[in-house]
Amino acid sequence: MDKQFMQTAIDLAKTAEGQTGKNPLVGAVVVKNNQVVGLGAHLMYGEPHAEVNALTMAGSAAEGSTLYVTLEPCNHHGKTPPCTELIISSRVKQVVIGSKDPNPIVNGKGIKRLQDAGIAVTEGILKEECDKLNTMLFHSLRTGLPFVTLKSAVSLDGKTAVESGESKWITGEEARKDVHLYRSSHQSILVGVNTVIQDDPSLTARLPNVQKQPVRVVLDSSLKIPIHSKVLNDREAETWIFTTNQANAEKVNFLKSEGIRVFQSSSQQPSVREVLRTLASEGIYSVFVEGGSKVHSSFLKDQLYQQLIIYYAPKLIGGKSSPGLFSDVGFQSMKDVPLLTIHSISKIGRDFKLIAAPSVENFPNG
Amino acid sequence: MDKQFMQTAIDLAKTAEGQTGKNPLVGAVVVKNNQVVGLGAHLMYGEPHAEVNALTMAGSAAEGSTLYVTLEPCNHHGKTPPCTELIISSRVKQVVIGSKDPNPIVNGKGIKRLQDAGIAVTEGILKEECDKLNTMLFHSLRTGLPFVTLKSAVSLDGKTAVESGESKWITGEEARKDVHLYRSSHQSILVGVNTVIQDDPSLTARLPNVQKQPVRVVLDSSLKIPIHSKVLNDREAETWIFTTNQANAEKVNFLKSEGIRVFQSSSQQPSVREVLRTLASEGIYSVFVEGGSKVHSSFLKDQLYQQLIIYYAPKLIGGKSSPGLFSDVGFQSMKDVPLLTIHSISKIGRDFKLIAAPSVENFPNG
Repeated sequence: MDKQFMQTAIDLAKTAEGQTGKNPLVGAVVVKNNQVVGLGAHLMYGEPHAEVNALTMAGSAAEGSTLYVTLEPCNHHGKTPPCTELIISSRVKQVVIGSKDPNPIVNGKGIKRLQDAGIAVTEGILKEECDKLNTMLFHSLRTGLPFVTLKSAVSLDGKTAVESGESKWITGEEARKDVHLYRSSHQSILVGVNTVIQDDPSLTARLPNVQKQPVRVVLDSSLKIPIHSKVLNDREAETWIFTTNQANAEKVNFLKSEGIRVFQSSSQQPSVREVLRTLASEGIYSVFVEGGSKVHSSFLKDQLYQQLIIYYAPKLIGGKSSPGLFSDVGFQSMKDVPLLTIHSISKIGRDFKLIAAPSVENFPNG
Repeated sequence: MDKQFMQTAIDLAKTAEGQTGKNPLVGAVVVKNNQVVGLGAHLMYGEPHAEVNALTMAGSAAEGSTLYVTLEPCNHHGKTPPCTELIISSRVKQVVIGSKDPNPIVNGKGIKRLQDAGIAVTEGILKEECDKLNTMLFHSLRTGLPFVTLKSAVSLDGKTAVESGESKWITGEEARKDVHLYRSSHQSILVGVNTVIQDDPSLTARLPNVQKQPVRVVLDSSLKIPIHSKVLNDREAETWIFTTNQANAEKVNFLKSEGIRVFQSSSQQPSVREVLRTLASEGIYSVFVEGGSKVHSSFLKDQLYQQLIIYYAPKLIGGKSSPGLFSDVGFQSMKDVPLLTIHSISKIGRDFKLIAAPSVENFPNG
């Protein structure tokens, strides 16, 4: 029965997908005498936690009940009071938990508080499924860096454009629509300035239910972003630019006056790791990297990515000078080439989509 | 019932897969009063046709029966006497046919002969499935050129080797085994001389049940093939070399004395179409093209291929100078890039395999 109730809690958590901002997805179920007496989910950033909603629904029936919750209850004051205190005051008898909260300010403290209050706690029920609700957030809490997805669209022979540089459109409509789902499930979208110069994209998730557009991040060490670019003018989402101390001060000030955030590194060219660390410190736990080739190459070279999504269009472009996926890296020996793990391949319209991830053996530090 | 008996005939035909040399796969079933009285397939080149085997099994029960046969019966003397005469003399009442024989020496003449003898003929039952038994042969009979499959093994970013040129091994064991199945289902394996120089492959189908190894075809306009290459010395299969009139006469004679066939073109560099025409005239109706990049490019440029098989290894090689799939073609505009149709994508070991074909719209002449 534990698994069944936990599965319900997972299903409840999922209903808020894309709505909780930088908060985790969490679901909760209150059960008494094998009957469900309360249901809850964390629905929106700043609003009550899943446990609070479920215990409120249960009312006095919470006394002597078992609370199923996908994530360890918090024990600290944030936007809302600690859930542990409400659980204790509601006289819940037992708490069944899916994932332990990797957030350093929780991480076991919630469990300990409950146990100290005499509540029986069971951990790890459907842990894997519960962890999956918040893969990107948990990765970020564990590593101090955001979860990075590299995305590209290529021909069957790995070309992102024809020899002239023209890239619109390699893939069909369905694949291009799919990209907007990924944009909306990440907190930020990152591109190199050359992509802005060449394509002038808006980099927004064009879907009806997007609560908050992801932050648009542009890597631009020499601050050459055109002043009339959409990302600087359309006000559809925040735009953050990563450049250096050497950048033209007047342009920096102008951009700031237009509401653009400008991050200036003291190094010649901010490293990928430096950019990611800054993003994490700004509360960004996921980055959707849309290229181009030079930016992808930097992430690949430093092995700073957790997921790779490639859309393959059924075309053969060929040509030595047509741009490829990762033109700036290159291995000298086959044995040095890291092996990835293919998670899925699926047809999408006339194209197909590959989802892969670095193999754990190659990435011992995750 | 027609479809059910034809399906049995198709299943019979398939049992001889890989055994019939340049002859088609054919199955036949003799039915009288809804009971199967004879079964047959064409099992081996030079041996009796399917109809003969089935009618022999039926014996006197053939009189007044219905004969189901996947391919139009022949009406000419080849290695065996015409099947139409046996069908007539066996007093078969009705003949149900899957595919009409596209072979110009048959192509409706068999059907006409049967009808002239007063036998009722039904055509086109499970036609598509029957055609599929002999896709490559039928293509060749219709077009006068062999059926061409381009095969390659690449990294996710379309690279066939690392920057040093090292290519062993991009793909895993399962994918490499799969290649031997394709080799055995084609009558010839074609490579450029650079592949011979670089890899010294044996280009044989290393499977237990291969009756006759495919012919190894090497494109070598300046006849620079190394004398000690495996394909020239191992006697595992025939080797045919396509070169020009300018080739070193001494080397040509030496190769011929070693049992190698040498085809000399009067043009500077034999075109793909010229090579294919010659192969067809030598009775080769299918070619498995294994590269390298220059050879693949020629077939792509002239759009002379019917099937594309790419094994993708879960690796990212990158690098501007790492060899790609089709380095010698290149389009200037996205709208000029022909669209292919994806037939299937499937995991194979740690890799995945794509099967695609040129879209019919782009290839009106098949």
